[in-house]
Amino acid sequence: MTIETVSTNRSFGGTQGVYRHASAQTGTPMVFSVFVPDHAPGAKLPVVWYLSGLTCTHANVTEKGEFRRACAELGLIFVAPDTSPRGDEVPDDEAYDFGKGAGFYVDATEAPWAANFRMRSYIETELPEIVAANFPADMARQGIMGHSMGGHGALTISLRNPGRFRATSAFAPIVSPLNCPWGEKALGGYLGADRSAWRQYDACALIEDGARVPDLLVDQGGADNFLKDQLKPELLEAACAKAGIPLTLGMREGYDHSYYFISTFMEPHLRWHHERLTR
Amino acid sequence: MTIETVSTNRSFGGTQGVYRHASAQTGTPMVFSVFVPDHAPGAKLPVVWYLSGLTCTHANVTEKGEFRRACAELGLIFVAPDTSPRGDEVPDDEAYDFGKGAGFYVDATEAPWAANFRMRSYIETELPEIVAANFPADMARQGIMGHSMGGHGALTISLRNPGRFRATSAFAPIVSPLNCPWGEKALGGYLGADRSAWRQYDACALIEDGARVPDLLVDQGGADNFLKDQLKPELLEAACAKAGIPLTLGMREGYDHSYYFISTFMEPHLRWHHERLTR
Repeated sequence: MTIETVSTNRSFGGTQGVYRHASAQTGTPMVFSVFVPDHAPGAKLPVVWYLSGLTCTHANVTEKGEFRRACAELGLIFVAPDTSPRGDEVPDDEAYDFGKGAGFYVDATEAPWAANFRMRSYIETELPEIVAANFPADMARQGIMGHSMGGHGALTISLRNPGRFRATSAFAPIVSPLNCPWGEKALGGYLGADRSAWRQYDACALIEDGARVPDLLVDQGGADNFLKDQLKPELLEAACAKAGIPLTLGMREGYDHSYYFISTFMEPHLRWHHERLTR
Repeated sequence: MTIETVSTNRSFGGTQGVYRHASAQTGTPMVFSVFVPDHAPGAKLPVVWYLSGLTCTHANVTEKGEFRRACAELGLIFVAPDTSPRGDEVPDDEAYDFGKGAGFYVDATEAPWAANFRMRSYIETELPEIVAANFPADMARQGIMGHSMGGHGALTISLRNPGRFRATSAFAPIVSPLNCPWGEKALGGYLGADRSAWRQYDACALIEDGARVPDLLVDQGGADNFLKDQLKPELLEAACAKAGIPLTLGMREGYDHSYYFISTFMEPHLRWHHERLTR
């Protein structure tokens, strides 16, 4: 579990680092970023996980997410993993929405993807151990958020691991891969044609099947090009209403799918997490 | 003076736009970005200019500068121009610190640069007319800031245009091109060997020669690789002390030359501008 420091930069009274390690799950080197606010010696800080969307690496949110100011103020560690294994030996697809940059936070079962595309286990098991061992992280106080495909990741990982995350939120998440073209392609490709195997990777299906979280915060841009065909927040709204999960859904008129949207609502999301992580 | 809209994104309760126009000064298309906070119909807002450093375009600060939140709160328009003319017909140099991406905010007099490298006139004359004509900008209330080479640009443009800018600040500026390798190379290349012609492009020399601003705000990272050989804030300190210009110089231990540094101190700079633009 040795990690290599790629870079550190002082920012907003904390340290923004980028790290690399050999992942047993993906069989590849993996890069992730961690922001650690200055803190008292020996103190452990709550952790917020941020899962990124299609085509992204750790770098997009690290450069454009505008999370450091609020994390420094609130004393939150912010962890941003990559979205897939990388490297010349890793199988890929020409499309932006499958293969590298599009791991969909699943453990693939289909060839040739199964060997490396194990982003579920990487995020659920391997990376948390690395974060706990290398950073002043209070693993009893974790929150998780994500954007688009990473919103799907945040919702499904939280729903499958009851009690681990005290706060769960998303920006423009894919709420039901079973019911959108991105999900059909990715889950079909990684998991095969048996759609019953997909349900553990579908936030709405998980809720239908009994999974619960205390509450959810979702923001969604009203001018998001993917709103109608891919994201469909109304499906999550219906599932939460039926299950009695309190969902705060902010429809943000005029906002699109970009980091101009995410950065705008990052601070309120972090405050929402902080409130739940410090109760 | 027609401008073309390249993109607009809603962000932090305002509009982040990117625009292109044919520049008479540079003889090329030029791209710049403008953030306009929401405002009452007919209202005119103060304008802050941000001049970028070596290798940058408008995009670096637009994506990584973290200025929109404060600009929206304070009601400030934020304009970010490019750092040089661009295009296949524009002469260039292989180095990162001369030619494209390195206009140094001068009007070049040497061949082959003189035809296109007219960034002084572009920023001082042409772009302000375009901003005034196309955005709800109160041109009686302007401030100017910049980073590194752009800090040099902000200081020298403000010093040469007394009364135009009510506020002038810089992040890690080149304070004296006459006294650093970047400056020697760029001013020698664009202006020729006669160093007396360089003084109008040297903040310390301008102050020595009698130019004045009401006050200055400068922040400088203590871990900036360029601090000792290129930036030399002590030269500005000495020039301001001798001239009686109040300089607030923040030495920021551990901070480097990157946008991780700039974004950290962007908000205090914007508040400093806002105070002077709304007196």
